[in-house]
Amino acid sequence: MNKRPIIIDTDPGIDDALAIAIALFSEELDVRLITTVAGNVSLENVTFNALRLLSFFGKDVPVAKGAEFPLLAEFVDASNVHGKTGMEGYDFPAPKEELLLPDHAVNAMRRVILESPEPITLVPIAPLTNIALLFALYPEVKKNIREIVLMGGSASRGNKGVMSEFNIATDPEAAQMVFQSGVPIVMAGLDVGLKALVYPEDSEEIQKMGRVGDMAYQLFKRYRGGSFKTGLKMYDSCAVAYLLCPELFEVVETYVGVELRGSMTAGCTVVDLKGYLHQEPNARVLLDIDGEKFRKWFKQAIAKCI
Amino acid sequence: MNKRPIIIDTDPGIDDALAIAIALFSEELDVRLITTVAGNVSLENVTFNALRLLSFFGKDVPVAKGAEFPLLAEFVDASNVHGKTGMEGYDFPAPKEELLLPDHAVNAMRRVILESPEPITLVPIAPLTNIALLFALYPEVKKNIREIVLMGGSASRGNKGVMSEFNIATDPEAAQMVFQSGVPIVMAGLDVGLKALVYPEDSEEIQKMGRVGDMAYQLFKRYRGGSFKTGLKMYDSCAVAYLLCPELFEVVETYVGVELRGSMTAGCTVVDLKGYLHQEPNARVLLDIDGEKFRKWFKQAIAKCI
Amino acid sequence: MNKRPIIIDTDPGIDDALAIAIALFSEELDVRLITTVAGNVSLENVTFNALRLLSFFGKDVPVAKGAEFPLLAEFVDASNVHGKTGMEGYDFPAPKEELLLPDHAVNAMRRVILESPEPITLVPIAPLTNIALLFALYPEVKKNIREIVLMGGSASRGNKGVMSEFNIATDPEAAQMVFQSGVPIVMAGLDVGLKALVYPEDSEEIQKMGRVGDMAYQLFKRYRGGSFKTGLKMYDSCAVAYLLCPELFEVVETYVGVELRGSMTAGCTVVDLKGYLHQEPNARVLLDIDGEKFRKWFKQAIAKCI
Amino acid sequence: MNKRPIIIDTDPGIDDALAIAIALFSEELDVRLITTVAGNVSLENVTFNALRLLSFFGKDVPVAKGAEFPLLAEFVDASNVHGKTGMEGYDFPAPKEELLLPDHAVNAMRRVILESPEPITLVPIAPLTNIALLFALYPEVKKNIREIVLMGGSASRGNKGVMSEFNIATDPEAAQMVFQSGVPIVMAGLDVGLKALVYPEDSEEIQKMGRVGDMAYQLFKRYRGGSFKTGLKMYDSCAVAYLLCPELFEVVETYVGVELRGSMTAGCTVVDLKGYLHQEPNARVLLDIDGEKFRKWFKQAIAKCI
Repeated sequence: MNKRPIIIDTDPGIDDALAIAIALFSEELDVRLITTVAGNVSLENVTFNALRLLSFFGKDVPVAKGAEFPLLAEFVDASNVHGKTGMEGYDFPAPKEELLLPDHAVNAMRRVILESPEPITLVPIAPLTNIALLFALYPEVKKNIREIVLMGGSASRGNKGVMSEFNIATDPEAAQMVFQSGVPIVMAGLDVGLKALVYPEDSEEIQKMGRVGDMAYQLFKRYRGGSFKTGLKMYDSCAVAYLLCPELFEVVETYVGVELRGSMTAGCTVVDLKGYLHQEPNARVLLDIDGEKFRKWFKQAIAKCI
Repeated sequence: MNKRPIIIDTDPGIDDALAIAIALFSEELDVRLITTVAGNVSLENVTFNALRLLSFFGKDVPVAKGAEFPLLAEFVDASNVHGKTGMEGYDFPAPKEELLLPDHAVNAMRRVILESPEPITLVPIAPLTNIALLFALYPEVKKNIREIVLMGGSASRGNKGVMSEFNIATDPEAAQMVFQSGVPIVMAGLDVGLKALVYPEDSEEIQKMGRVGDMAYQLFKRYRGGSFKTGLKMYDSCAVAYLLCPELFEVVETYVGVELRGSMTAGCTVVDLKGYLHQEPNARVLLDIDGEKFRKWFKQAIAKCI
Repeated sequence: MNKRPIIIDTDPGIDDALAIAIALFSEELDVRLITTVAGNVSLENVTFNALRLLSFFGKDVPVAKGAEFPLLAEFVDASNVHGKTGMEGYDFPAPKEELLLPDHAVNAMRRVILESPEPITLVPIAPLTNIALLFALYPEVKKNIREIVLMGGSASRGNKGVMSEFNIATDPEAAQMVFQSGVPIVMAGLDVGLKALVYPEDSEEIQKMGRVGDMAYQLFKRYRGGSFKTGLKMYDSCAVAYLLCPELFEVVETYVGVELRGSMTAGCTVVDLKGYLHQEPNARVLLDIDGEKFRKWFKQAIAKCI
Repeated sequence: MNKRPIIIDTDPGIDDALAIAIALFSEELDVRLITTVAGNVSLENVTFNALRLLSFFGKDVPVAKGAEFPLLAEFVDASNVHGKTGMEGYDFPAPKEELLLPDHAVNAMRRVILESPEPITLVPIAPLTNIALLFALYPEVKKNIREIVLMGGSASRGNKGVMSEFNIATDPEAAQMVFQSGVPIVMAGLDVGLKALVYPEDSEEIQKMGRVGDMAYQLFKRYRGGSFKTGLKMYDSCAVAYLLCPELFEVVETYVGVELRGSMTAGCTVVDLKGYLHQEPNARVLLDIDGEKFRKWFKQAIAKCI
């Protein structure tokens, strides 16, 4: 079987690191490009982190740096969650600088997509600024994109605002540009992310799974200040899990719009399960996840990262 | 013990009818006034229904007619749920016309509130147009209101729009006027209403509980087209249940704002459980209900309606 | 000829004082009621001012106190323009307290309107809170209202926000309720108000016109800090001028909506002269005024105030 | 004296054609690049028109094709004003296809800007989609941009919506991205465009000015259906006029924001002349123009197009 070609658009970030690890070591995925975007921390830091991760994993995937700021919204990072550099707590090797392309992420994505004989799957696990810019500049890439499997949004409440999730709320205009792009979208949001949990006992198991497991363990200890008795949320791994093990999820095809005008709800992904808005479906939304199966899958996936 | 004096602001409506029945026959509540407002169906119909109910129940509570339309929003009723007249399926006696006051609901509420030695509790189980007008005209009544226990809103998704509940979405500006009024508010919204269920087997029991039970049974058969295998939602009874049996509920004190500007989220009650909006609490929100205990309580309450 | 019966809804305010004077002393107008509303300064102060004015003018028109606050917007007065009490600079006689009705303005308006054999003209020269409440509570009054001739709004830029005029921006929701009420509206906004100017030399003439002229002169000296070389704007007198001398104005029948959702434009009166919004006309907008003729008319009108 | 290097971003369009002519034949400007964007008509048509114009003018300026659609807003062109192809009424020579670069406009602009020893002036006389994308992708170009002299916006009313001008309203999000970019901006909007008029008698003079004059005359005859007794508005030429003859204009330095949330005012440029919004100035706005001098200047400028 051919490996499925993907581009990961990311802002590592602790849970990004794990999602990237799983994708890179998977036998079913072919990570053609990693692009970075301001999100959990600054563009400078997330790019540095991506290059450190590749160095640590020993994988030679090209990296391209993308947008430094959201299109319109004021940039507020999540260093309160991920630590100042976004990936503190582990002593990573020096970044593999030679993997950094001179191109802007948007140009690198365009090239990889247009040169691929097989349609590419985009896996954005960060604010959607780069993807929005890609479609605005190069709409011709759409025809060679298989689908977008993104981490972001929520069908109910949020984690950045009352009704808005971090990746979407960080750049709501970009998100709406992507949702109205016409490209098939799978949305893995808080509905599954909040239930994709790793518990302290899993963490102990993971530590014994070799270098990557130990790295994960060390980062977990620092994530959200180190207290995770109620479980650490593996948001970003949900997008990768959907690619590798879609049977973990309950999926609904529906319309999703991003609220851009609310005084308190801007960035809310309006997931119209009942058809109130009379719009055609534009996304498949992961509404539920089997948490137990996910834990098992996640640990197996990390165990393969060797 | 003194009975607790209340004013019910309502738009009957099938589930209103049951909530009113329970309040009228309760030994702990003293229904001083029933006011009507356009909502489930037209003002004409809901007032007619209120008077028919009082005739049927044999209770002499004065009724005052309120607002015919929302303040600003276009009026869209819920006759798809409640039937054209709002209370079809039972052969009610003629309305007790003499209970209808010549005053506008807002003036009647003012008088009842200011004349009461004890502070009054308002129980709006309808769009909040009347209550908003009351406070705008007569802010002096606030000091003799104990609290507002309202049915409306949601801490997550909606039932009129994707993110908005019927009573709030029908008149969002009125709702926001009430939430920012400074009067203590208890919000019984979809978070409890969707779990305050009556099942077919309960309905059979209820039918045998006398005249009111039989009436309830007949209405239930028509509610939402008569199919209620997954349970009929007793939204409005939640507000009354909170007055009589608060231990059924999980309550959180928090800030609630009504979104007035969203292009897709207008009418959303933004329940800020995590303090994202940096506002002082203005409501106690019923976030959860013990569904089993509610069923038992509801049946006992209907059984007392004799 | 019968005098035309009017109700003045006002927040005096210096330019209100002159408009009221002209109306009270006019042989063509019959001021049946003066209602007050928070606006230029607090409700307390504007009511006090209205009663002082009547005492000074020697006119026995009943006064009723209305809304203390806008419906939803935070109240910000214009004491920077009108001085702390709203009418500083002249030593008025004690207010004629006996003219103050016990009723709320909304109830007083209702009674006056419904009791009048002839349709009443409303002349609101203040935020539209009272008028909006009147229609929300008592839609039955609409049929006996001849028209609303209001001071407020603008077809271009604003004087309270970049694109919003003071009376409308102070209570935008109330304004929109009035504009969508179906009652015929004449809008005298900044388009004429900014050109309805009184110059220092007029002011000198006016001083010699007797008691009212002298009062006007003294107030003018304090208005906007006393510097009015470029002319004092007689905003409110435009509404009265339209009643008495409509030929001063250029009038266009068109649709006017009030922007309620803009982040920077809330309170803007959107005067759709070109039909962009595909709405039916709901107002006659005074787009231009003959400034020279207005000056002459204004001085003659003040001269009659004896 | 060195010629001032500029990039024209355009959507020809009849008045674009004249502005481009004046810039190309000016001895003071060095047009380094022409970029196209969907606006008056489709991207396909405006690019075809740009190439036809260069062929007709005999000028070898490279052209790069930009954005096919606004970032978020639905695209509505102005073919009602400019005719189906955007430049009907004259028999242009075949387009000079070899001037069309293979690069996207955004990449071409980047290269020209970064390669220029002297800072470049951007002259966008079209929706701001390309410029917004340029800054989002390549913020490093900002340091070598002298200023942006754009045609768009209005300090009062609009020509696409009640309060919004065509270029801004076509892509309001892009416009706001440009206004908040930090790059010095000169805004030539309707405040001057509506007074930059060419009358039938000017048109007759222009016809006799050679090939370009005759072309202008023929296009004028078709512009807006051919009736221009009250004057044809030379919107786009105002931006070029500012570069060549700034003394025609009255300029104010102020804050300009683009309203993105209004239900009726979206796309309004909020020109905060009085400081209501408490923002730092981000633009110089051309508030007035000497119409007579402009006519003379315009005719002289066209006369030089030989």
